[in-house]
Amino acid sequence: MSLKMTLDDLRIFLRDHFGQVAEDLEILDVSPMHLVLRGLVDDKHLRPGGTVSGPTMFLLADVGFYLAILAMIGPKALAVTTNCSIDFMRKPVADANLRAEARILKLGRVLAVGDVLIYSEGEEAPVARASLTYSIPPDR
Amino acid sequence: MSLKMTLDDLRIFLRDHFGQVAEDLEILDVSPMHLVLRGLVDDKHLRPGGTVSGPTMFLLADVGFYLAILAMIGPKALAVTTNCSIDFMRKPVADANLRAEARILKLGRVLAVGDVLIYSEGEEAPVARASLTYSIPPDR
Amino acid sequence: MSLKMTLDDLRIFLRDHFGQVAEDLEILDVSPMHLVLRGLVDDKHLRPGGTVSGPTMFLLADVGFYLAILAMIGPKALAVTTNCSIDFMRKPVADANLRAEARILKLGRVLAVGDVLIYSEGEEAPVARASLTYSIPPDR
Amino acid sequence: MSLKMTLDDLRIFLRDHFGQVAEDLEILDVSPMHLVLRGLVDDKHLRPGGTVSGPTMFLLADVGFYLAILAMIGPKALAVTTNCSIDFMRKPVADANLRAEARILKLGRVLAVGDVLIYSEGEEAPVARASLTYSIPPDR
Repeated sequence: MSLKMTLDDLRIFLRDHFGQVAEDLEILDVSPMHLVLRGLVDDKHLRPGGTVSGPTMFLLADVGFYLAILAMIGPKALAVTTNCSIDFMRKPVADANLRAEARILKLGRVLAVGDVLIYSEGEEAPVARASLTYSIPPDR
Repeated sequence: MSLKMTLDDLRIFLRDHFGQVAEDLEILDVSPMHLVLRGLVDDKHLRPGGTVSGPTMFLLADVGFYLAILAMIGPKALAVTTNCSIDFMRKPVADANLRAEARILKLGRVLAVGDVLIYSEGEEAPVARASLTYSIPPDR
Repeated sequence: MSLKMTLDDLRIFLRDHFGQVAEDLEILDVSPMHLVLRGLVDDKHLRPGGTVSGPTMFLLADVGFYLAILAMIGPKALAVTTNCSIDFMRKPVADANLRAEARILKLGRVLAVGDVLIYSEGEEAPVARASLTYSIPPDR
Repeated sequence: MSLKMTLDDLRIFLRDHFGQVAEDLEILDVSPMHLVLRGLVDDKHLRPGGTVSGPTMFLLADVGFYLAILAMIGPKALAVTTNCSIDFMRKPVADANLRAEARILKLGRVLAVGDVLIYSEGEEAPVARASLTYSIPPDR
């Protein structure tokens, strides 16, 4: 399977369709069935105690996996999340950006399934692991 | 089991500890092992197409279940989410607030487990269902 | 929404399609979007320490939710599990049967979503909670 | 981190503690934080249509991850599954054994988190993906 969108295509799509959210996200790499997304962390993403908030990590996993799917099926698809399960394993580093590594395990006719590992940049052990299922509309 | 925090206690806690997020949340009801939280929806929570964003629903489920736990164990506990699994079932109504009904199914010594149903206010069928596990620190 | 299969229809279907497994299962009740299934527990379901095995509870949740769907859409459907997430919350009583209460939260065109609470019979607190998603083939 | 149990230690433990289930399981490989387990498939694991049953795959994921933990913390631990979430992605091949590759992503003081990929032997694409959380008792 080959890519239907290049890194540049995806960056333009992100900027055009994700509004303010796009400012905090940076697509680092894409290859068939894989995508790496950076989440820029600033004060608005932090919780008391200096930890990155859960919704911030949810967003990163969700958008990272969504873009990995679009890279494979093209920009027209209106895929929607049907399930996201996140294990929060370690406290993220407060003054480090996040790095999400998304992989697609199944790209079916109606469902895409995969997972995302999230790291504080510079650390070896992941802070969170997400499994996601997307529903892909039949009209693609 | 009885409540260690009243509705008013919880509202003050929310305002004092959740900063800007608290502005969009309103605790409607609390009883042993149950809590109802309203999420005020405005433009910043919407995605193209007029649907409420996933992170907005994640936040509502997570905070709703967290407050349900605090109501039972008191405000000092430093509980953290270890897992959250959300099924997105229907498109939320764009111009309606959300209502999250949290219930605790197990309140153990180290883990609390439960689920949250999320509705667009005025609708009968839930838009999302979340299962959550919280880790409760031993020093409580 | 009304039932397409009665309690008797479902019992016959279970006996005819689930072979040996059916001997340990008993459908207690069905109503629109709900079904109650008993799991008969004997030595082959136990683990050292006298607890009911995880796969036994998985089977009960999975079959219970499957039958709840069939009750609504009829016996011809070839629905398959796409996700099952189980929280094991308490140790089941070794010498008690299990009772699974399944409810459908969404019965869509291609996906059905719901959850199952599992109890040791005679106990008030659930031993496990499962969320399930089934894929429903288009040809129904 | 180094192994506290060798491949032989684990095989003896499996035979001694898992009774009949052990006959269908074969530990192929162990290394720090990883373990590979083969599931021998015969008629009793099949469903109508020739597919391997869900509980069979649940068992394989659960035991595989459990053994991966024991390899790291030693045979005395009484770890129990608190959550298992499985995505069933493809129909397993009926006349092939299964291969489960377990990895531990977090081995904490009270919780271990990881995932398992399950393959039909000889196939490249996984048939299922499981996330698991185990609770580790404090007395280890």
